[in-house]
Amino acid sequence: MLLDHINGPQDLKALSVSQLNELAGDIRQFLIEKLSVTGGHLAPNLGVVELTLAMHYLFNSPEDKFIYDVGHQSYVHKILTGRKDQFDTLRKYKGLCGFIKRAESEHDVWEAGHSSTSLSAAMGMALARDLKGEDNRVVAVIGDGALTGGMALEALNHIGHEKKKMIVILNDNEMSIAPNVGALHHYLGKIRTDRHYQKAKDELQQLLNKIPAIGGKLAKTAERFKDSLKYLLVSGILFEQFGLTYLGPVDGHDMDQMLDILRQADNIQGPVLVHVLTVKGKGYSPAEADSFKWHGITPYKIESGQVVKAVGPPVYTDVFSDMIIELAEKDERIVAVTPAMPGGSGLLRFADRFPTRMIDVGIAEQHAATMCAALAMEGLKPVYAVYSTFLQRAYDQVVHDICRQNLNVIFAIDRAGFVGPDGETHHGVYDIAFLRHVPNLVMMMPKDENELRRMLVTAVGYNDGPIAVRYPRINGVGVPLDPNPQPLEIGQWETVREGDSGVIVALGPMIPVAEEASELLKREGLNIQVVNARFIKPLDEQMLLSLAAEGKQMIVLEEGSEMGGLGSSILEFYSLNGKYGLPIRIIGVPDRFIEHGSIMEQRLEVGLTAERVATEFKEMMPRRIKRVTGKQ
Amino acid sequence: MLLDHINGPQDLKALSVSQLNELAGDIRQFLIEKLSVTGGHLAPNLGVVELTLAMHYLFNSPEDKFIYDVGHQSYVHKILTGRKDQFDTLRKYKGLCGFIKRAESEHDVWEAGHSSTSLSAAMGMALARDLKGEDNRVVAVIGDGALTGGMALEALNHIGHEKKKMIVILNDNEMSIAPNVGALHHYLGKIRTDRHYQKAKDELQQLLNKIPAIGGKLAKTAERFKDSLKYLLVSGILFEQFGLTYLGPVDGHDMDQMLDILRQADNIQGPVLVHVLTVKGKGYSPAEADSFKWHGITPYKIESGQVVKAVGPPVYTDVFSDMIIELAEKDERIVAVTPAMPGGSGLLRFADRFPTRMIDVGIAEQHAATMCAALAMEGLKPVYAVYSTFLQRAYDQVVHDICRQNLNVIFAIDRAGFVGPDGETHHGVYDIAFLRHVPNLVMMMPKDENELRRMLVTAVGYNDGPIAVRYPRINGVGVPLDPNPQPLEIGQWETVREGDSGVIVALGPMIPVAEEASELLKREGLNIQVVNARFIKPLDEQMLLSLAAEGKQMIVLEEGSEMGGLGSSILEFYSLNGKYGLPIRIIGVPDRFIEHGSIMEQRLEVGLTAERVATEFKEMMPRRIKRVTGKQ
Repeated sequence: MLLDHINGPQDLKALSVSQLNELAGDIRQFLIEKLSVTGGHLAPNLGVVELTLAMHYLFNSPEDKFIYDVGHQSYVHKILTGRKDQFDTLRKYKGLCGFIKRAESEHDVWEAGHSSTSLSAAMGMALARDLKGEDNRVVAVIGDGALTGGMALEALNHIGHEKKKMIVILNDNEMSIAPNVGALHHYLGKIRTDRHYQKAKDELQQLLNKIPAIGGKLAKTAERFKDSLKYLLVSGILFEQFGLTYLGPVDGHDMDQMLDILRQADNIQGPVLVHVLTVKGKGYSPAEADSFKWHGITPYKIESGQVVKAVGPPVYTDVFSDMIIELAEKDERIVAVTPAMPGGSGLLRFADRFPTRMIDVGIAEQHAATMCAALAMEGLKPVYAVYSTFLQRAYDQVVHDICRQNLNVIFAIDRAGFVGPDGETHHGVYDIAFLRHVPNLVMMMPKDENELRRMLVTAVGYNDGPIAVRYPRINGVGVPLDPNPQPLEIGQWETVREGDSGVIVALGPMIPVAEEASELLKREGLNIQVVNARFIKPLDEQMLLSLAAEGKQMIVLEEGSEMGGLGSSILEFYSLNGKYGLPIRIIGVPDRFIEHGSIMEQRLEVGLTAERVATEFKEMMPRRIKRVTGKQ
Repeated sequence: MLLDHINGPQDLKALSVSQLNELAGDIRQFLIEKLSVTGGHLAPNLGVVELTLAMHYLFNSPEDKFIYDVGHQSYVHKILTGRKDQFDTLRKYKGLCGFIKRAESEHDVWEAGHSSTSLSAAMGMALARDLKGEDNRVVAVIGDGALTGGMALEALNHIGHEKKKMIVILNDNEMSIAPNVGALHHYLGKIRTDRHYQKAKDELQQLLNKIPAIGGKLAKTAERFKDSLKYLLVSGILFEQFGLTYLGPVDGHDMDQMLDILRQADNIQGPVLVHVLTVKGKGYSPAEADSFKWHGITPYKIESGQVVKAVGPPVYTDVFSDMIIELAEKDERIVAVTPAMPGGSGLLRFADRFPTRMIDVGIAEQHAATMCAALAMEGLKPVYAVYSTFLQRAYDQVVHDICRQNLNVIFAIDRAGFVGPDGETHHGVYDIAFLRHVPNLVMMMPKDENELRRMLVTAVGYNDGPIAVRYPRINGVGVPLDPNPQPLEIGQWETVREGDSGVIVALGPMIPVAEEASELLKREGLNIQVVNARFIKPLDEQMLLSLAAEGKQMIVLEEGSEMGGLGSSILEFYSLNGKYGLPIRIIGVPDRFIEHGSIMEQRLEVGLTAERVATEFKEMMPRRIKRVTGKQ
């Protein structure tokens, strides 16, 4: 097929439009086949085939800078820039990254994973270009959902002010990950449905021509009236108000139109917004029918669109999903808040059950957090369901609005720890480090899915300030679920395994790893206590003091940043209490970013394994003995 | 005067408009007199006298929720709600807070200090009200500068979508702290200068009436044309596009107009934006003439407007200001970026010298950070000058865009440590805790103003990734400035005082405190080493290992969060390296928010004093002896 002969963007340049269309078909077929095996972001990529082809056909990557917002829609770009042979390794360990990755290709210039950064990146690249006196193009591709993110709007405001030449392509598929929320969405909807805008424009021009010439002020007003026509009629008023030239909307699957509008855009001197209408999942009917489900997909059967079902205990997200409904049935103060992740966060059924008590604010993590503060201030119990990595966006709001005012906001922090194939932009390995020093916050992590239920009960019953429960992107361990879960005592840890030769203090999914390590050590005659440190803050000070009194050698095991994490907190506690002699070792995520792969591969890479823990435990021992005898 | 008889909002209700005007005069006089002694946010408060009076006259606080963005313009609100007798204590330790403070009054419902949170708060309060079936008003007051903050735009988008009843008052004084930047500003400027909008509206209505009736499509178009009139002519298009009803602009110092427009707004069912034009510093000519300088002011002479000058060595901000110009003269890669703080961050002269290399993005900390990433990617050396507390807004951008991509961005983090009278919302006590776990970042803090110069040289010469230098809001120590400062070796600490009885590892302005403590201890025969831990990351591992080998008792002294700070980092290092027996105590800012006062009072409150350090040092000693003899 034609795709076989495309090894770089230069191979596109000589093609005819009909060949480009043929190539678009090849690419769709390629994506549908490859992703049926690997999984990945199918629907977004099927939506941008023509758009990406048009960009590479007309412009010159890498001299021209292509910036993809989030980057999950960059598969077509990867195919066209010499990486089609690597798609069998997509999102796998050491394989092709699911996002833009500079190390992969000179054509990859801007990495992301979180949304709404592309306009700031484009602004910086355009500024740098002009300061250096260069003349390359800067082209950003941003989805309609990402546009509601505060930083995209901050950038839009600045772009309109600076008037640097750049092309912003608004990839409007009516659907980011979840159906979009907000005024911007309605606004875009208005444009989309206004199919007759060109006709109307012509008619109005005729109408205006019929207005009799009138002297004085009225004439001036009429003139202003005419000027404003373009704003009124092309309906790009909002963007024009921000100071960008607005072109479109155009059918993003019509190659002629796409090429035409990008050529027009290229001739405009300042910033221009090109409004492109695309269909997520275009060309694969199961994905077109349910682009929400097919945004990111696990392996599937091409013919039927049937997805290979995972088996096993329920994932934590689903346990949260059920429990929060149960709790909301009994407590009408509970409202759920999500920044554009109702599906991922397990709140779809909550929305069905309590439509007025479920608030999806769109991609707007900051607003969501501060709005929760206000809801709590008025006596409600907002549950802010958010991925650990995206909560990074609301750090200041957590500190300044929620914790400083000590308000009863519940954080349901999903995707804590490694997340697997989404990789380094998405791991939830910093939330302990960026939250535990914030005053007034209580922070928990469950050892299993039943304890998650207990923690949610605990959180709803807690009325002394903000409280967070974090849980991983994995299956539960398969324990039975208590139909009537009891709250935990704040700050109380538990020993899940007794032992007198030392202790492993472990967090969440590291508890089974700790238990396995203690099994390994048992074979060597060592009986290791395993503690479930289910409260990250406050610590179980009594238990820590007991452990210190016993003089037990300790390993702290956590799937999060070694710097500033739970282990660090324990070291601080002992230091504060003058317990200086204790041998403590932290095993967690080291001080570097960890790339995509499976969660097990990521744990293996950093050494979050029973074998490592057992080995380190033994290695610590002689040191301690040396220390005790004063020889060190 | 009339003000003497006003002890609460209820005392306003019976006044006539002319009495309200008289009262406005009294309030201005009161503010000018009181603040001449205490200092404070004079200009913003002089600008909102009529606005605040109108709100309290028409609406019913505290049942109706008044939400002030930032809150530095809430002095008039405080005067009207029974706190006028406390103004002698304004911004002083245990005195009246310079922002909204819930503990002060039931009329204070929403605290802030950082900008752009009010719309999210209003949204939450309106949602809660409707969920609870109540019917109070929600009124937010937001400045034009704060409106560019991403979270305000996120909230605006959501407000337009939900259509809850609320009044958003846009306090448009053409000037936030610095002259506003961005497209929104131009947009507001257009509205402000369009003084004839009402006339034009009438004229156009006449014009439209003259259009002959035409059948079919054209008539429909004409109708649409008419509908759009209000958008076109009142010029509030942007806000109308977001889904809010737009009223104004109105003269914010004309009490009749203010009352009239707020009554109109109150009759509208959905969200309404009331555009109020005010003059910062209104009624006090020095402040009107230079509202930038008079935004926040130190004590002054009322007649002349002369400000009481502080004496002493240069503040760190000024040393940064000079040095960054010197460096930029020699290195044209350097560009300076500020989120609306060119004055506070010491970049005004840089902007004069290098107008194209100074980029003020407005209140937009997130965009600023990510734009810096892109500038660095293109080979420039962006210097992101930002207050520690405001950098909290860009945590995710620092992690995801700058550090993950390992780009050469220089952070100039001002206001690190306690900040004095701005109090708990503004302290720079978390940046170490929220930054040090981020991979790839180098982080420094100077012991004096000359070392700040050396650190800036170091940062500009460093090309291996992001590098931060943080410095306090105080005067330097008065050392001579080396005209040709030399770079530091990355990660190298220095001993500023030798001693064999123990060591104090101190950071920045805590070094003089450590030296004083060591003087105190010397009187008791103890010779304490003092180390300048000028690199927070990476640590000086060699020095730490030497100290461990010497078995020295250590105090780590830092004006930042005790949790997750430098001390914590040292504990982690020793743990990682199997150095378990070391007596280490961290003295920093404890796990709670610290209120306003002077920096010295704040240090005293938490015990960042030489006396405390000396006492703790002695207290540690017996413990260590017990440990060594194995009795513990």
